[in-house]
Amino acid sequence: MTDFAKQERSGDARTAAKGRAPLLEALVDYRDRKLGSYHVPGHKGGLGLDPAGEGLFREVMAIDYTEITGLDDLHHPAGIIREAQELAAACFGADETRFLVGGSTAGNLALVLGLCGRGDLLLVQRNAHKSVLNAAALGGVRCVFLPGRTDPASGLAAGVPLAALQEALERYPEAKGVLLTNPNYYGMADDLQEAVELVHRHGKPIVVDEAHGAHFGFHPALPPSAMQSGADAAVQSTHKMLTAMTMGAMLHLQGERLDRPRIRRVLASLQSSSPSYPLLASLDLARLQLETNGRRMLDEAMARLNRLTQAAETWKCLELLRREADSAYGALDPFKVTVRDRSGSLDGYRLQERIEAFGCMTELADPVHVLCLFTLASPDENVDRLTAALSAIDAEIPGGMQEKRQFMANLSEDTPDFELSLPIAVPWDLEKALSSASVPVEAVPLAEAEGCYAAEMVIPYPPGVPLLYPGERITSAMRDRLLRLAEAGARFQGTAGDIRAGLNVTRRPWAEE
Amino acid sequence: MTDFAKQERSGDARTAAKGRAPLLEALVDYRDRKLGSYHVPGHKGGLGLDPAGEGLFREVMAIDYTEITGLDDLHHPAGIIREAQELAAACFGADETRFLVGGSTAGNLALVLGLCGRGDLLLVQRNAHKSVLNAAALGGVRCVFLPGRTDPASGLAAGVPLAALQEALERYPEAKGVLLTNPNYYGMADDLQEAVELVHRHGKPIVVDEAHGAHFGFHPALPPSAMQSGADAAVQSTHKMLTAMTMGAMLHLQGERLDRPRIRRVLASLQSSSPSYPLLASLDLARLQLETNGRRMLDEAMARLNRLTQAAETWKCLELLRREADSAYGALDPFKVTVRDRSGSLDGYRLQERIEAFGCMTELADPVHVLCLFTLASPDENVDRLTAALSAIDAEIPGGMQEKRQFMANLSEDTPDFELSLPIAVPWDLEKALSSASVPVEAVPLAEAEGCYAAEMVIPYPPGVPLLYPGERITSAMRDRLLRLAEAGARFQGTAGDIRAGLNVTRRPWAEE
Repeated sequence: MTDFAKQERSGDARTAAKGRAPLLEALVDYRDRKLGSYHVPGHKGGLGLDPAGEGLFREVMAIDYTEITGLDDLHHPAGIIREAQELAAACFGADETRFLVGGSTAGNLALVLGLCGRGDLLLVQRNAHKSVLNAAALGGVRCVFLPGRTDPASGLAAGVPLAALQEALERYPEAKGVLLTNPNYYGMADDLQEAVELVHRHGKPIVVDEAHGAHFGFHPALPPSAMQSGADAAVQSTHKMLTAMTMGAMLHLQGERLDRPRIRRVLASLQSSSPSYPLLASLDLARLQLETNGRRMLDEAMARLNRLTQAAETWKCLELLRREADSAYGALDPFKVTVRDRSGSLDGYRLQERIEAFGCMTELADPVHVLCLFTLASPDENVDRLTAALSAIDAEIPGGMQEKRQFMANLSEDTPDFELSLPIAVPWDLEKALSSASVPVEAVPLAEAEGCYAAEMVIPYPPGVPLLYPGERITSAMRDRLLRLAEAGARFQGTAGDIRAGLNVTRRPWAEE
Repeated sequence: MTDFAKQERSGDARTAAKGRAPLLEALVDYRDRKLGSYHVPGHKGGLGLDPAGEGLFREVMAIDYTEITGLDDLHHPAGIIREAQELAAACFGADETRFLVGGSTAGNLALVLGLCGRGDLLLVQRNAHKSVLNAAALGGVRCVFLPGRTDPASGLAAGVPLAALQEALERYPEAKGVLLTNPNYYGMADDLQEAVELVHRHGKPIVVDEAHGAHFGFHPALPPSAMQSGADAAVQSTHKMLTAMTMGAMLHLQGERLDRPRIRRVLASLQSSSPSYPLLASLDLARLQLETNGRRMLDEAMARLNRLTQAAETWKCLELLRREADSAYGALDPFKVTVRDRSGSLDGYRLQERIEAFGCMTELADPVHVLCLFTLASPDENVDRLTAALSAIDAEIPGGMQEKRQFMANLSEDTPDFELSLPIAVPWDLEKALSSASVPVEAVPLAEAEGCYAAEMVIPYPPGVPLLYPGERITSAMRDRLLRLAEAGARFQGTAGDIRAGLNVTRRPWAEE
């Protein structure tokens, strides 16, 4: 490490503090004091590193300390961790920031279990991350699922319409709060300010799974962050769109609507009592980088991406997802590049194979799209490599030009966007819940399933999110939507067979334990 | 990295496989292919590393991948993670081993929630790790706490007597299983074989928090491991006594008594959906090292420690904890060096300060002892440094030689070792549970508290473990024990004031939610 710790940057004390990484610096100082280790970890600062790990773990093991004298305590921070968290809170616009070593998963668990006790009700965006569902199942929290808009161009599920949120707030005044996901995996984002105001007018907290948006709010071309929009809490995967090590994440809190001691208690209960200091230090470092060089790096990275979007205009079959007048979202993260073959020759999975054959490893494929993820750290060469690969693939496609967009548009028309689910206690152990329930599971043709309760999860693509959760009551509108999707050739995950022939349901509601 | 991956060691295929680290090797191979990253993490293999992190994260970020094509999936392992886990299972004598990125905390949560649903009963060693208690509170699991023997020489709590275990099994046939901690923090260990046989005769599983014993069973001078003793599961902090990175741990499973799919589901629910590959690879590497060089390293490290124990014989006041004829445990881990000043001049905390003034950073101090932790990775210089420090401190102590051993012996005499608690639903949120309970909290003099229910946690030292959990009924024997401790000058953690004057209790039982 360069001796940046000693460089005082110009400006006031606050600016000087921003240019520091107190947690990282303390680890380096501690390492350099060459103290004797009579404590964990057993590798003793790397003295015990096996030769096979040379060149991989040498550097990091030298700062792989634990909660010993002088190095603070993640679960009761009072020293360097507190200082680093306070700098992060100032940077991300929070009143309080907690560093997470268990990823956004830990943050989502803390939000759900921090907001709700057993039997409490939470209003949850339908396409929530599985960690939100796991938390609800574990904590016996009942969820009312809020629908997302279907995006016409892509068929993908985007954010929750305000009208649906309002209806839910009015129908369920006992709800403990609202949990939204913004942006989604593909970078589709909404300005949450109106939603926040609506929820706050109803006297409730609104918390945001912002795992994919740690860079939001740090450049005029990026959407505002959840904190900027006034949300009470936001969980960010600092490792995803910024530069922390994998599993490094942050929970940001502001205002007085949340029970912060309870949230801290959940975190202390579910995260390791021996947290990884390198992970924590990488969060400190990612914040330092964003604060000192973020704007420039984001600028430059976006300029680089122009080369890809310009090349895309010459393609005959491949196309990039772009925000259009009828898009179901307010903004698209420029760092998420979603590509598809509009001729229909290559589905998403085959397109991914072709791209990866060029040595370009992608984030995700769905039946239609491939998602490529850039960040402020992606260099020129990286953009050029994908541009060349996609241009070559485009040239290879025979290109019948069978426009597929209409398929998506048809599916997104007349969908019951505004339908809320009834409150559901998603079972944590579906099999056990069903076997111990007094009500038998039957396979019923979808057309006849109205009024029954789903006994399996139904995830059609599009929109790629669960349209039926186990335990969810099947309305006529949902039955019709699923029939329409099945007839149009949507793919279904999670179901045993063709749901038109037989969907696993029960005739009466059931709940776990 | 040396090209060990290409070295075929002599012997059969199994031996060859043992000399490999498939997960680590795959990461290195992947790194060396120099593929383009269009996926998380955002640092892009370290391309985005801030200069302030140079020399710290460069090496490790190059293998900080995620669950992309070819790199398997921790929660559904089918490739390199599965291979590495299978090698670990073979090495540690398990049928199945799961790598943990959330520390032993994740493993303990998985065991408690994997064994018990809400309201189920678990027999738990009283001095269980807080993660066990957190899991029970979170899952609504009722615990019957099993007493530990009090060790005469140290006053510390050791293992559960067989008779207490038997009584609990007979009194609570509905219990879902037994959770023991072995060894304890100070390295006090018992051979668990008889306990395992007893529990199995009652048709129940027995699982072990073996966080401090990952090296057990790998040297004749070390106690057998929980797996070798026939336990159904064991959680090990591979980072503590072996050489994985901090937060790297393993869950070992054997036999058919546990619901393994349920345990896997808990792990998938509570651990990050973006697990850290460096952490996972460090587990693979720690296993490789143990298997190929462990015996020699353990031999050499124990020989080194002889220099310390020989020097200790010349001290006039300081003394090391050693197993004696009347010790309350079967074996003492030679790598845990517990020292105290028997003259009483320096209590544990002051002794720790003196030791750390010599640059020897220790694991733990309690009111009497300081715990120094060695591992197979501790070099000569490390042993010599502490030996010199302790010899110098010993020479400085005026040394009135007021033997304090009698104090401990008195406290451990006539203690109600065999008393079980009643089933307790330890509340996760004590304050909330008390405030929502219909029964008021009163401060009652300890002498009058018999039959009341504790409304705070009472942790006297000695023995340094909770003797009353919130919600626990206060028996006459416990009242007498606590009075005796308080009168003898034991220190109390967790209580608001002198419990002889007023202990927070309720007159009737209460439970959370």
